[in-house]
Amino acid sequence: MPVETSARSAAEILAWSRDLVEPAMRAVVEAMPGSMRAIAEFHFGWRDEAGRPAAGAGGKAVRPALTLLAAEAAGGTAAAALPAAVAVELTHNFSLLHDDVMDGDRTRRHRPTAWTVFGVSAAILAGDALLAGAYEALADAPSPDPAGAVRVLSRAVLELVEGQSADTAFEDRADVTLAECLAMAGGKTGALLGGACALGALYGGGAGRASRFQAFGERLGLAFQLVDDLLGIWGDPEVTGKPVHSDLRNRKKSLPVVAALTSGTAAGEELAALYLRRGALAGDEPARAAALIEAAGGRAWAAADR
Amino acid sequence: MPVETSARSAAEILAWSRDLVEPAMRAVVEAMPGSMRAIAEFHFGWRDEAGRPAAGAGGKAVRPALTLLAAEAAGGTAAAALPAAVAVELTHNFSLLHDDVMDGDRTRRHRPTAWTVFGVSAAILAGDALLAGAYEALADAPSPDPAGAVRVLSRAVLELVEGQSADTAFEDRADVTLAECLAMAGGKTGALLGGACALGALYGGGAGRASRFQAFGERLGLAFQLVDDLLGIWGDPEVTGKPVHSDLRNRKKSLPVVAALTSGTAAGEELAALYLRRGALAGDEPARAAALIEAAGGRAWAAADR
Repeated sequence: MPVETSARSAAEILAWSRDLVEPAMRAVVEAMPGSMRAIAEFHFGWRDEAGRPAAGAGGKAVRPALTLLAAEAAGGTAAAALPAAVAVELTHNFSLLHDDVMDGDRTRRHRPTAWTVFGVSAAILAGDALLAGAYEALADAPSPDPAGAVRVLSRAVLELVEGQSADTAFEDRADVTLAECLAMAGGKTGALLGGACALGALYGGGAGRASRFQAFGERLGLAFQLVDDLLGIWGDPEVTGKPVHSDLRNRKKSLPVVAALTSGTAAGEELAALYLRRGALAGDEPARAAALIEAAGGRAWAAADR
Repeated sequence: MPVETSARSAAEILAWSRDLVEPAMRAVVEAMPGSMRAIAEFHFGWRDEAGRPAAGAGGKAVRPALTLLAAEAAGGTAAAALPAAVAVELTHNFSLLHDDVMDGDRTRRHRPTAWTVFGVSAAILAGDALLAGAYEALADAPSPDPAGAVRVLSRAVLELVEGQSADTAFEDRADVTLAECLAMAGGKTGALLGGACALGALYGGGAGRASRFQAFGERLGLAFQLVDDLLGIWGDPEVTGKPVHSDLRNRKKSLPVVAALTSGTAAGEELAALYLRRGALAGDEPARAAALIEAAGGRAWAAADR
């Protein structure tokens, strides 16, 4: 049955979505072969390093909520779109498992990342397993258009990995344009949010409007990334759970940074001299970089309506 | 139209299959986003490190040939099963890209592996892209049962990565049983060959018999692995293209080795003393290990009819 989402807060909607999606996620993971299942259960926080049941730490799960909401917005039910929501969330977590390996990140959601516990190979393989599991979730459930759903998910994954590839390549480049940076964010974040909404529409009986839902998700993804980039520079560590200026220490070429670097301002040029060299920023350099990004207009650009 | 495969040699059949499959593979890769496409084209040998067109080095392509042959055996045409053959070959190459990263292998098919040219992150992402491309190939073509095909492929991938995970885990274990080793080989090699045959049956109009085709492929996969393991120890370097005793130098726990280690013979115990320690075998140790495997019955066991 349709749920009156309009009267509820975002936190309530996310909790509602998680309550629907998690049991279905667990069922997919339980059907995986043993080693892959163990790594997935650890990754989702359902078990600790020793394999003991744990409280869970699956994150906000924004993407599957979008799928369920899109299904309702298209005139269908959240229940009908549940397999698609599960597929989207498994796909997101496939990319997190591989990201953590590629970036060498040791913690996620305040817990050790899977590769630090199970090894790099096991984490790569478990990511692969979650992606295969995502497709299996689509295939195992009734769908108005199974091939169409697989096509939407595949295209989102292809754009996602292309965006991640660009993000990595940017590290070694001094001449990243704002257009390239926007395209990268569109792939890295927009593609799967777009896919999440398109799949919701598909399963909600609105296949004919799926491309509009997809465009909505892609725009939302870009907004999501801009806010994330702003928080990565000016976010309150108490709220974000990340160190202050975390993105700047690693000289990440996020959107506000590239907007500043390509601003043609004196502050932008000073930022380039500080930022486009080897090695992490240290001491008061991250704070100086943040001030230069703001002076060059990068913060205002990222925060502007578009 | 059905092709008279019975009158042709294996080499002719493989060439026939490659001629059908490669153009379709190229079409899928050409539709990928730029970076992923470039890595895939290098991996398949269609381009060299500098991006110049090259002759191609895609391997024998046994798996897609099995899919096409299975379709014909099920009463259908190779042409109808072409998307499935492409999906199977893309899936195989997804696993090769990730394998080379995990094993740190620097050459494949006499060429540098993708990660040595494009970096580890790019090779992981390109593997992910080939897997998504495999599903897209299934979804983009007419299919008697799109969801069924996705289910078969997903299950094969899950068993494949589980087998690879076990293979890695065996390196650090001294107590691998023959049953575990057979299960590992069943996953690592049998699952995708089984899936290749099942998909062929599905696209050839023999969905009701797909599980029998799958079992045939799994058995063939085990035979394939046993022969590969024997060649890894006693193969002629001129023919295999690998150094003599290559598997033994790395103390790989292949099937003949585990058969010998678990044989309960004096030779098996002597092999354990040599083999179950840290570090590669050197000097005349690999030859000694090969002799002990043979004396313990590992070679005869692997070569026996079953």
